Amino acid sequence: MAAMELQQLVDRIAAEVTPGGTPAGYIPALARIDPHAFGLAVATLDGEVFRAGEHSRPFSIQSISKAFTLALALAENDDVWTRVGREPSGSPFNSLVQLETEQGIPRNPFINAGAVVVTDHLGLGAADRLLGFLRQESGNPALDVDPEVAKSELDHSDRNRALAHFMASYGNMRNPVDVVVNEYVRQCSIAMSCTDLAKATLFLARHGVRNDGTRLLGVSGAKRVNAVMLTCGTYDAAGQFAYRVGLPGKSGVGGGIIAVVPGKCAICVWSPGLDVRGNSVAGVDALDRFTTLTGWSVF
Amino acid sequence: MAAMELQQLVDRIAAEVTPGGTPAGYIPALARIDPHAFGLAVATLDGEVFRAGEHSRPFSIQSISKAFTLALALAENDDVWTRVGREPSGSPFNSLVQLETEQGIPRNPFINAGAVVVTDHLGLGAADRLLGFLRQESGNPALDVDPEVAKSELDHSDRNRALAHFMASYGNMRNPVDVVVNEYVRQCSIAMSCTDLAKATLFLARHGVRNDGTRLLGVSGAKRVNAVMLTCGTYDAAGQFAYRVGLPGKSGVGGGIIAVVPGKCAICVWSPGLDVRGNSVAGVDALDRFTTLTGWSVF
Amino acid sequence: MAAMELQQLVDRIAAEVTPGGTPAGYIPALARIDPHAFGLAVATLDGEVFRAGEHSRPFSIQSISKAFTLALALAENDDVWTRVGREPSGSPFNSLVQLETEQGIPRNPFINAGAVVVTDHLGLGAADRLLGFLRQESGNPALDVDPEVAKSELDHSDRNRALAHFMASYGNMRNPVDVVVNEYVRQCSIAMSCTDLAKATLFLARHGVRNDGTRLLGVSGAKRVNAVMLTCGTYDAAGQFAYRVGLPGKSGVGGGIIAVVPGKCAICVWSPGLDVRGNSVAGVDALDRFTTLTGWSVF
Amino acid sequence: MAAMELQQLVDRIAAEVTPGGTPAGYIPALARIDPHAFGLAVATLDGEVFRAGEHSRPFSIQSISKAFTLALALAENDDVWTRVGREPSGSPFNSLVQLETEQGIPRNPFINAGAVVVTDHLGLGAADRLLGFLRQESGNPALDVDPEVAKSELDHSDRNRALAHFMASYGNMRNPVDVVVNEYVRQCSIAMSCTDLAKATLFLARHGVRNDGTRLLGVSGAKRVNAVMLTCGTYDAAGQFAYRVGLPGKSGVGGGIIAVVPGKCAICVWSPGLDVRGNSVAGVDALDRFTTLTGWSVF
Repeated sequence: MAAMELQQLVDRIAAEVTPGGTPAGYIPALARIDPHAFGLAVATLDGEVFRAGEHSRPFSIQSISKAFTLALALAENDDVWTRVGREPSGSPFNSLVQLETEQGIPRNPFINAGAVVVTDHLGLGAADRLLGFLRQESGNPALDVDPEVAKSELDHSDRNRALAHFMASYGNMRNPVDVVVNEYVRQCSIAMSCTDLAKATLFLARHGVRNDGTRLLGVSGAKRVNAVMLTCGTYDAAGQFAYRVGLPGKSGVGGGIIAVVPGKCAICVWSPGLDVRGNSVAGVDALDRFTTLTGWSVF
Repeated sequence: MAAMELQQLVDRIAAEVTPGGTPAGYIPALARIDPHAFGLAVATLDGEVFRAGEHSRPFSIQSISKAFTLALALAENDDVWTRVGREPSGSPFNSLVQLETEQGIPRNPFINAGAVVVTDHLGLGAADRLLGFLRQESGNPALDVDPEVAKSELDHSDRNRALAHFMASYGNMRNPVDVVVNEYVRQCSIAMSCTDLAKATLFLARHGVRNDGTRLLGVSGAKRVNAVMLTCGTYDAAGQFAYRVGLPGKSGVGGGIIAVVPGKCAICVWSPGLDVRGNSVAGVDALDRFTTLTGWSVF
Repeated sequence: MAAMELQQLVDRIAAEVTPGGTPAGYIPALARIDPHAFGLAVATLDGEVFRAGEHSRPFSIQSISKAFTLALALAENDDVWTRVGREPSGSPFNSLVQLETEQGIPRNPFINAGAVVVTDHLGLGAADRLLGFLRQESGNPALDVDPEVAKSELDHSDRNRALAHFMASYGNMRNPVDVVVNEYVRQCSIAMSCTDLAKATLFLARHGVRNDGTRLLGVSGAKRVNAVMLTCGTYDAAGQFAYRVGLPGKSGVGGGIIAVVPGKCAICVWSPGLDVRGNSVAGVDALDRFTTLTGWSVF
Repeated sequence: MAAMELQQLVDRIAAEVTPGGTPAGYIPALARIDPHAFGLAVATLDGEVFRAGEHSRPFSIQSISKAFTLALALAENDDVWTRVGREPSGSPFNSLVQLETEQGIPRNPFINAGAVVVTDHLGLGAADRLLGFLRQESGNPALDVDPEVAKSELDHSDRNRALAHFMASYGNMRNPVDVVVNEYVRQCSIAMSCTDLAKATLFLARHGVRNDGTRLLGVSGAKRVNAVMLTCGTYDAAGQFAYRVGLPGKSGVGGGIIAVVPGKCAICVWSPGLDVRGNSVAGVDALDRFTTLTGWSVF
């Protein structure tokens, strides 16, 4: 597909989608954002970025951070898979049931308990390492944690603390819970734009190769992150997302979604209005249109 | 990839895999099969079939039948998705919990409860319709239910009857439980070879088009079956299968696995030795090698 | 307490309670009964019966039958406690979870799954044995199953069939599910009056001795039935009942409740209006008043 | 029963029971105690105490503290029942399931989550208030927290912190988790002898009246504590305890059990060897013999 065509496509999608749904309400800083905002960016392997809407407006990446921290953890020698599984969870209704049944081992790195384990695996300084990685891949050295969001999340962190202490009671926590929750909250509170995120996601489309040509992950590691994204990346709507979009993707309650077309491009779409399962309404719609129009679906 | 190469590849895989694991033990007829048997068949869109090992030896298709009954149900006007979900389940440990939490609506068509609903949706004669479809697609009019396996399964059908009555108590069963369980058991007890199954699966690689050029499903319907296979097709190892194989697939406790490379081919591999999650050890290994050697993975 | 006083007390209670709540709705035959009906009978060890209200009007005993079938099963040599537990369940929300976690062994004989096991233990003819026992103890040879209620229950027996098949899948069912469910339904559908039930319950106040002076149970067996009634006899309100009434009791969704004052008397109260947990509103109130006025509480 | 007889009875029980089982292993300070130690004390309403074995040796009261903190909380005007239920739980296997299903409201005050809520209800200084009460009722001003046990428990408090944060996420925690867990741990770590505990429990046998003749609880409040003890006081063996002992009782993993004969006496027995459900083997046996020999059972 030619560059010209991709830009037209991106513009067409931005023109056609109708933002809807409701922004996440549990944090004031997220709740007051206009639900009709919309941004889209597609970064291709040859270095171009096609953009539409509010593509350069930063938003809270929230759970999208989980895809990156998983990649960083997999880049270490130390095996994270002994501490967290790789299977879909059937969340949310059984999150704690599962954790109890499976003795403190979360089902996958994208449910909160699993992401907390991954953060603990990265240890003290996890959020700063993530920031460093995202700045370099996006080429945007100004990326940072949104302090207001971070504070608000810390004030509402009882559920995550419960999960962390619960896993600690099974011996699956290396650092103090306070430290881990703090790193976790800072990661989720990073603010990025669609353009930033599309660029930062490109290493997954490049089978693990970073912006500067070095490898973060081997081909197998990148495939693993993509597989986890496809089966577990959109909360309890992974089956529906696999059908409608048919690409590995990871969403966040800030309204952003990243998606990967292996060997071709990385996409980031943002619109704060969420459906009942926590995925951006306009975001899923835009990705659905994108794969329908390009034919770049997995199936 | 040329035909010559595919045959070499199939031969190489058959030579390299080491069958292992244990046959399913809950039914005598399945338990006494040699766990080291192995067969492989790859059917391409242009009509060729590449084979290795015991590719023409019939085995019990068991849960592989679920992929076909889902396709048959989707081919009807009547919407089956109001009665069964499309999300991974995190089975097995919470199967009944979920059914209770979600008021008698199974999570997806590939857990037993979901397949029972799909069978009920097809109604009386479901097994005969499935047989008719499989005979026509495979070109093998001799395909039939293995009466010994069917009898053995009927004698061990209490769990499935429990699921069916439980769903009936929520109003999610149209036919008498006896009728539905009988149809369900007959479907699972059909005996087919790798060659039969690879051919019969081709309609999913053809985006819904049958052997005779007519459509069973639209493109969207075929994509749906593939998406459900990728996210839910291998019991509680879908994440691991997505990573190792990276293709839509459906396994059965008879040791068979079918897989689809959309637009290219359908594969069936068989070896009765199972891992702890109920998937064929040599079958997963063979598919892993196949996608590694061909590069025909989704990611 | 003198006979005169007991009659005054019974009259006073009947005058003071205000029937309320809603009759059980899942069976038409039960749903259309006047929720304000009220009856009370107290049978003492010396053979007197003190009555008030509609004490001689038959109603559907429903789960009250579970106390009697447990007693009949304990009277056999064959040990029923290997097949059913004796602990409170925290029902209803986890009934099936527990059954799965505890491998087909119900928590106690008063949840449906447990009562089905007890019925299976008694085997074919269980309902007739129960009828025979109740006729003899109550001195009312006309007692019988209400055929309309029995039919209605059979038509709504999917949940109980699910439980029975589920336990059968764990090997905890001796007779065919059809047979057991039929016996179970007939037991629940027996119609008795407060007077009938108070008399029939006297053997528990007599520490196991029947009307004719023979023993159904040893002292230890009678104590066991009373202990199960106190901890598990009123669905998920056993703690509340223990506090308000402080006596071993067993309720049914037909609106009846039996209670035992060991060494003194047996009580039956009836009023069809139920609270959210399935216990008769006026029934619990009347028993609360009875123990408050007599001081005959356990605590 | 005369004083002479009670002393003989107590001596006979001490001579006949055979301590067994295994001390609680999760805290070093508890694990290294001789499992064969045994003590018994019966305090009657007229002020006498009958003793046998190591009746004056202090042990860790652990969960026995829950009966006293419940009584202290009920003595306040502020209603604790809006924050914790009164029904048996079917613990342990579903503790967290229940908490999630019931939106952060623990089932009863004797499971850990419920006791944490009661402690939070008493607030900062809860442990000191408990100590003050126990010193006064036992007449032993030297009672105190065992600092070694308290430290060990604090080091293993992740599960309780998880429960507290989980309830906080539902809004059911007034004080900071750190404060509440600290108070809770100190309460559990109080060391008392059988004689101390039997005396301190007398107010429940006196229907709420303290040592000095003032009331801690009304008759109704004392009945409530007794009812909760009977239905929930011995972990997941309340049904079995109700049958064998037939008295309101509360056990702790330190090996102690208190029991109440309303209107007659309070009993404390201690032996550190536990059965699989966490109750003292010799303790339950001794209480079983006590009620059998005296006939002072509820049933």
